[in-house]
Amino acid sequence: MVRIKPRSLRPGDTIAVVSPASAIDDDRLGRGLAVMEKGGYIFKLFPHTRDADDYLAGSDADRAADLMAAFDDPECAAVMCSRGGYGCSRLFPFIDLDRMAASGKMLCGFSDITVLHLALNRRGLVTMHTPMPITLSYEREPWVHDSFFRLLQGDPTIAPEVPRAETMVDGTGEGELTGGCLCLLCDSIGTPDALDCRGKILVIEDVDEKPHRVDAMLTHLINTGIIQEAAGIVVGEMTRTDDLSDPTMGGKSWRWIFEDRLGKLGIPTVVNFPFGHMKTMLSIPLGVQARLNAGEGTLTYLESPCAEA
Amino acid sequence: MVRIKPRSLRPGDTIAVVSPASAIDDDRLGRGLAVMEKGGYIFKLFPHTRDADDYLAGSDADRAADLMAAFDDPECAAVMCSRGGYGCSRLFPFIDLDRMAASGKMLCGFSDITVLHLALNRRGLVTMHTPMPITLSYEREPWVHDSFFRLLQGDPTIAPEVPRAETMVDGTGEGELTGGCLCLLCDSIGTPDALDCRGKILVIEDVDEKPHRVDAMLTHLINTGIIQEAAGIVVGEMTRTDDLSDPTMGGKSWRWIFEDRLGKLGIPTVVNFPFGHMKTMLSIPLGVQARLNAGEGTLTYLESPCAEA
Repeated sequence: MVRIKPRSLRPGDTIAVVSPASAIDDDRLGRGLAVMEKGGYIFKLFPHTRDADDYLAGSDADRAADLMAAFDDPECAAVMCSRGGYGCSRLFPFIDLDRMAASGKMLCGFSDITVLHLALNRRGLVTMHTPMPITLSYEREPWVHDSFFRLLQGDPTIAPEVPRAETMVDGTGEGELTGGCLCLLCDSIGTPDALDCRGKILVIEDVDEKPHRVDAMLTHLINTGIIQEAAGIVVGEMTRTDDLSDPTMGGKSWRWIFEDRLGKLGIPTVVNFPFGHMKTMLSIPLGVQARLNAGEGTLTYLESPCAEA
Repeated sequence: MVRIKPRSLRPGDTIAVVSPASAIDDDRLGRGLAVMEKGGYIFKLFPHTRDADDYLAGSDADRAADLMAAFDDPECAAVMCSRGGYGCSRLFPFIDLDRMAASGKMLCGFSDITVLHLALNRRGLVTMHTPMPITLSYEREPWVHDSFFRLLQGDPTIAPEVPRAETMVDGTGEGELTGGCLCLLCDSIGTPDALDCRGKILVIEDVDEKPHRVDAMLTHLINTGIIQEAAGIVVGEMTRTDDLSDPTMGGKSWRWIFEDRLGKLGIPTVVNFPFGHMKTMLSIPLGVQARLNAGEGTLTYLESPCAEA
């Protein structure tokens, strides 16, 4: 497998905006793009970027056509997904992932976009786990914007004001960064583009999952033997997990669940790493070599995420 | 693999009652057992049947110890799970599934118990997808009780008053019955006891899943190639799926989702088969040969589910 790093962006570059998963409303799209315009970028929307059909942003064929057109478009230096939600896993029969990876375009997004990160990383392309227009349409800490713009320009340095993670299992581990939204990681198991943690640093976050489902998903990763192969585990925000206790089921804290499921695997592990759906949203390059120092609560990138501009 | 059919039950037989997943409260347990006592059975509770620890019915070691003790107990002719919820997938390191299968005991339960059905069916044991004390503690149609007691006694005949399923894809298919709760079927993928649909009739039901998650789970079964190998698909109740539309996501009807995901696979398929979590709860033997006539909306068992009493 040839590793392909996307070219870093410069102000003035054009970024494709597509909706491969759920629909984004015009107001949120406008606000999110306004934030991104501060970085000096130009945005190119595709014919179906604003489509909406219930929980999908239009038909599979249309969402896939936009995604392929964006990767094929010589005008666009990067492809930004407008929103996650749900829908990327439906696109496999309609897209050419080898061509997308070979394009060397920078892919930006997270949450449901985890599906595309896994598939493109597996084909060698480094991709960017970043906020999207919908997430930038809400108020965010200044360091969230700062980290986003830095990564687009190929600088993944983590600024001093970014909160550190907490140690769960001490130790250090090195490997390629993989992962994303827990529920999509589990949905990949058994597919050709399944999560593969062998010798890698696994990053995990999720939103709106009930406590017992978080337990079930971690147990799924354990019962398959996938997570035991990781060189390090980085747990970010588990947004609202603790609020979703079920009156008929109870609800252990997400912290308890991770400690219980992962604390005895002997893998360096941190929790509360500042990336996730809501409060903390550090931009992370996926597919690059990184070092986790679980004792210090830090992640360090061992290589540049981008080719020279 | 040697196929093992459990011995059919007779009034006066003792049934072990264990809690391998979530906790059941005393009131529900008492009411459910009262219904089951009408069948003339005696119940033996194990030391941890009433344990509760948040969403689990006590520690993994204790739940597993009760489950093994029940299968090993010569006094007990069958093992009934008090409740589903969540927890069976945590038990693999603590239980001896080969010994459980070799015991030839009848296992009864559904929902989270799907995990045990898959693992025991794979080891040759026919198991029973039936109501549990918690489900019988609520008012049910008379045919639900009738079908339950008939199956315990080895008679899986479907009474005329049981509603028929609706045709989604016409045709007939024959094969071993497998399946259960959709979310647990997906949680099995990639594990040693994964759902295997090769030449089988797959039964599916679930409760409290959002529409887009039902889509995601069916898409997971498609992206792995697992569901395409089924000889027939029987969709039961998708309890409350249509009620769980998300204001930020919308919510197609479960009927649309199944039609969209499964309607083009060319596999005989019915929906609204009368089995599931709430209104309809037909007892079904898993691991026996059956014929699905999708055009007529009927499932016929081609062999007895039990060894002679």
